[in-house]
Amino acid sequence: MADILPLKGTRETRATILDPLQDLVTADIAKVNKVIVERMHSRVELIPQLAGHIIASGGKRLRPMLTLASAQLCGYAGDRHVHLAACVEFIHTATLLHDDVVDESDLRRGAATANAVWGNQASVLVGDFLFSRAFQLMVEDGSLRVLGILSHAASVIAEGEVMQLATVNNTTTSEEAYLEVITAKTAALFSAACLIGAVLGERPRVEEEALEIYGKNVGIAYQLVDDVLDYSARQVTLGKTVGDDFREGKITLPVVLAFRRGNSDERAFWQRTLERGAVKPGDFEHAVALMERHGSLRDTIARAGHYGAMAGDALGIFADGEAKRTLDGVINFCIERGH
Amino acid sequence: MADILPLKGTRETRATILDPLQDLVTADIAKVNKVIVERMHSRVELIPQLAGHIIASGGKRLRPMLTLASAQLCGYAGDRHVHLAACVEFIHTATLLHDDVVDESDLRRGAATANAVWGNQASVLVGDFLFSRAFQLMVEDGSLRVLGILSHAASVIAEGEVMQLATVNNTTTSEEAYLEVITAKTAALFSAACLIGAVLGERPRVEEEALEIYGKNVGIAYQLVDDVLDYSARQVTLGKTVGDDFREGKITLPVVLAFRRGNSDERAFWQRTLERGAVKPGDFEHAVALMERHGSLRDTIARAGHYGAMAGDALGIFADGEAKRTLDGVINFCIERGH
Repeated sequence: MADILPLKGTRETRATILDPLQDLVTADIAKVNKVIVERMHSRVELIPQLAGHIIASGGKRLRPMLTLASAQLCGYAGDRHVHLAACVEFIHTATLLHDDVVDESDLRRGAATANAVWGNQASVLVGDFLFSRAFQLMVEDGSLRVLGILSHAASVIAEGEVMQLATVNNTTTSEEAYLEVITAKTAALFSAACLIGAVLGERPRVEEEALEIYGKNVGIAYQLVDDVLDYSARQVTLGKTVGDDFREGKITLPVVLAFRRGNSDERAFWQRTLERGAVKPGDFEHAVALMERHGSLRDTIARAGHYGAMAGDALGIFADGEAKRTLDGVINFCIERGH
Repeated sequence: MADILPLKGTRETRATILDPLQDLVTADIAKVNKVIVERMHSRVELIPQLAGHIIASGGKRLRPMLTLASAQLCGYAGDRHVHLAACVEFIHTATLLHDDVVDESDLRRGAATANAVWGNQASVLVGDFLFSRAFQLMVEDGSLRVLGILSHAASVIAEGEVMQLATVNNTTTSEEAYLEVITAKTAALFSAACLIGAVLGERPRVEEEALEIYGKNVGIAYQLVDDVLDYSARQVTLGKTVGDDFREGKITLPVVLAFRRGNSDERAFWQRTLERGAVKPGDFEHAVALMERHGSLRDTIARAGHYGAMAGDALGIFADGEAKRTLDGVINFCIERGH
């Protein structure tokens, strides 16, 4: 597999790729973390306990950092971006909590999921709490435009998650249907996170649109690579449980490509494992071998490269500078973590 | 049991008690239903299917009707109340969907629950969709005040639901702890639904507060009686599954009172059934008999009467008229459906 997914990075080198973004927003992200801790508080103790568990468990804060960096790119000099970045992270965290319930996951980022520790019930309800809290923060900010952007994104995310339910266990899912799912469930929030930066900076519509498109394509690339990582054993250092998607019968692009490029024996294998869930020891390794045979992991990363290129070109209209270079570097991070 | 919970109403007479409210808002509620059907639409077919199932399954639309009636009471003559009443119903429906997942309920209002038909996953995600859609409707309305009221209510509801998790299976739960739970999980939305009417009518703070207090106390009375109905066999006509709370180990006021008034044998019974979940045939009937012995259903209704009286007095500052008389009648509906 080495020549298909060359080991370009260890955990440290991957972290380095995100360093410029962290450096760019270092003071702001500290403020965002402070707002997150303050505002996830509730006199109902289980809420900050459970929310703190998932929020502290090693998330990269990629989405709120995109809001902060986009605001910088757009010359915004106030402090509203800090609270709005916290909103973005709250919405993301609420969807993670509900995702883990829906997927019945036990591990996230190498740690036990909230539902594994406190049960599905608490995860559903604390997700609801964080979601409401995000809206309260937005109301305090007072911008109907931002409220519109994030309430729209939240409903698109929910639509994407429901669409995904329909593709689970369905090996005939098309690349287009898969793209529609990830555009909704993942890219919508990346897009909204970036767009908010332009709205804060009161930039013309063409710049808003550029950041919307940048965020959307970065989000698609990010999810494509995430789906590769689920089959790429050496990525255990990322804290993801390798093989989750396979065991859950999730149909991601690596599967779509391997299924379509496979012979009838191979399709029977995918149908047995992903449709009927009859997974035996060694099946996951066989799945990875089939993906190598057909280059479906390599080509999924190539697809991510395509969306990354579109993201990069969307940034073209902005003047050169540290913020632009950093956002451009985020594209590389999203794609290269797949290697 | 007849002298404790006299059968004052059949389904028809109970319906009659709500008739004045339905008459008062009849044109508006038809518009609300239209908005609900239009706005629960999504190109993801499962969303309107599942949402339509729960929204159409015989809900009374009590909360949105309270928004409409409160707006009338406050002399509001526009049409914003229609969309905001739909928001209230969407938030309510989202919490019902999540509740049924949390409670693992199979029946609601006499019909199969959405989670029983489509699974927990879809119910969680469609709940999220409806919740987001409620916020989109509010953003379209454009009032930050209303957004603040309903986002606050939503986070209080989630807190109440999490608090309730901590009381489940805990027979030593106090009446005060129980009241705190229902004030948050139920009364907060009733209160917000009514307050919005005063906000729309641009009434002085004292009238806003009166409707807030009215709604809160009506909500508490409603939930108290709801909890009685769960032990009151003849209420099967309401479509509630009698005995759900008992089987789920939920600690409601009828239990709190019976436990505290019982002897050590009785407490052992409650501990076995509600704490350890070791429920045998005949246990539910025995639970009802213990409640009769200690008058705990009767006294829960008496407590509801107390909150109803406070609700009625809160309305006192408004001028007499059809809207006021109708809202006063809603209090009776909430309490008398317990008989």
